[in-house]
Amino acid sequence: MKTIGMAVMTLDGCITRHAGEGTAFASREDQAHFHQVLNEFDCSVMGSRSFEIHRSAIMAALDQQRLRIVLTDSPAKYAELQRPGSLEFRRANPAGLLDELAARGLGRCAVLGGARVYTDFIRAGLMDEVWLTLEPLGFGTGRRLFEGDIDFRFSLLSAETLSSDTLLLKYRPRAAGPAAF
Amino acid sequence: MKTIGMAVMTLDGCITRHAGEGTAFASREDQAHFHQVLNEFDCSVMGSRSFEIHRSAIMAALDQQRLRIVLTDSPAKYAELQRPGSLEFRRANPAGLLDELAARGLGRCAVLGGARVYTDFIRAGLMDEVWLTLEPLGFGTGRRLFEGDIDFRFSLLSAETLSSDTLLLKYRPRAAGPAAF
Repeated sequence: MKTIGMAVMTLDGCITRHAGEGTAFASREDQAHFHQVLNEFDCSVMGSRSFEIHRSAIMAALDQQRLRIVLTDSPAKYAELQRPGSLEFRRANPAGLLDELAARGLGRCAVLGGARVYTDFIRAGLMDEVWLTLEPLGFGTGRRLFEGDIDFRFSLLSAETLSSDTLLLKYRPRAAGPAAF
Repeated sequence: MKTIGMAVMTLDGCITRHAGEGTAFASREDQAHFHQVLNEFDCSVMGSRSFEIHRSAIMAALDQQRLRIVLTDSPAKYAELQRPGSLEFRRANPAGLLDELAARGLGRCAVLGGARVYTDFIRAGLMDEVWLTLEPLGFGTGRRLFEGDIDFRFSLLSAETLSSDTLLLKYRPRAAGPAAF
């Protein structure tokens, strides 16, 4: 199972704008890239808040090509929306979930946020790569990619341009641990 | 007068680590780059907290090649450290300060932080470029590049590598204003 975190961020490290939610600030080029590469995944994972924000778009785009997993403390709340094999609401830890997805024959999982989900996966050592779109924006305030005090080092795999101002940076997490700070 | 903000940041947008201060997390390559390019400036500006953190290194390196300005609400507190033309403590707004520095024949100012100083200069429309070193680290918590709710757009001028994992990104702020969010 290959697990890749995907996020769009301002150059001052905001994945949301001010007190708002969602990624409406993402450039057209990032959105096109995002929808294109999602086709290369057979499953994706997001938190329930991310689901709520994008709910109508997600419900309109369900198919059997990609299983969407929504992590929530209250799966029962979403029972009516459940579409086995297409949209499933789960209370699970990252390791157990990925084991189950692998057992179901799935091989490529996109981790779509938000911060808590990104952090849970990276803390568990279950993120193979992080693909970060860096938009040429500064918001000053907003949610950050990771939550809580962490210490991770990454290797830069590639840096490419999605437009003249937008970068796509791909990183691989290295083993976590007390780095030399 | 050309004014350039310089900062080192993790890939999740932290310019400090957790509750700590300073930039000890900067890579050797970033530190070498920083000290090299500083030679191209005839003045620099930092806040008093940044000065306090780097105080002993700054006091050991004073010269007449570059005027260091420390912005503080209490210049009198630092009267004994004052070295006219080399280290000056000032209570000033960005515009007034840059006008004065230009009148004194200075032409290239490095804005060295922290967040409040970066934000004051960019809000005043007085930052010509921002040079951002992106280190392959994730801290989860720490100070951010800018403070408060802002909405700035930038143009990407260049992206280069300082090492296999560390990027140097140069941006130019565009006119501020209510972008289409």
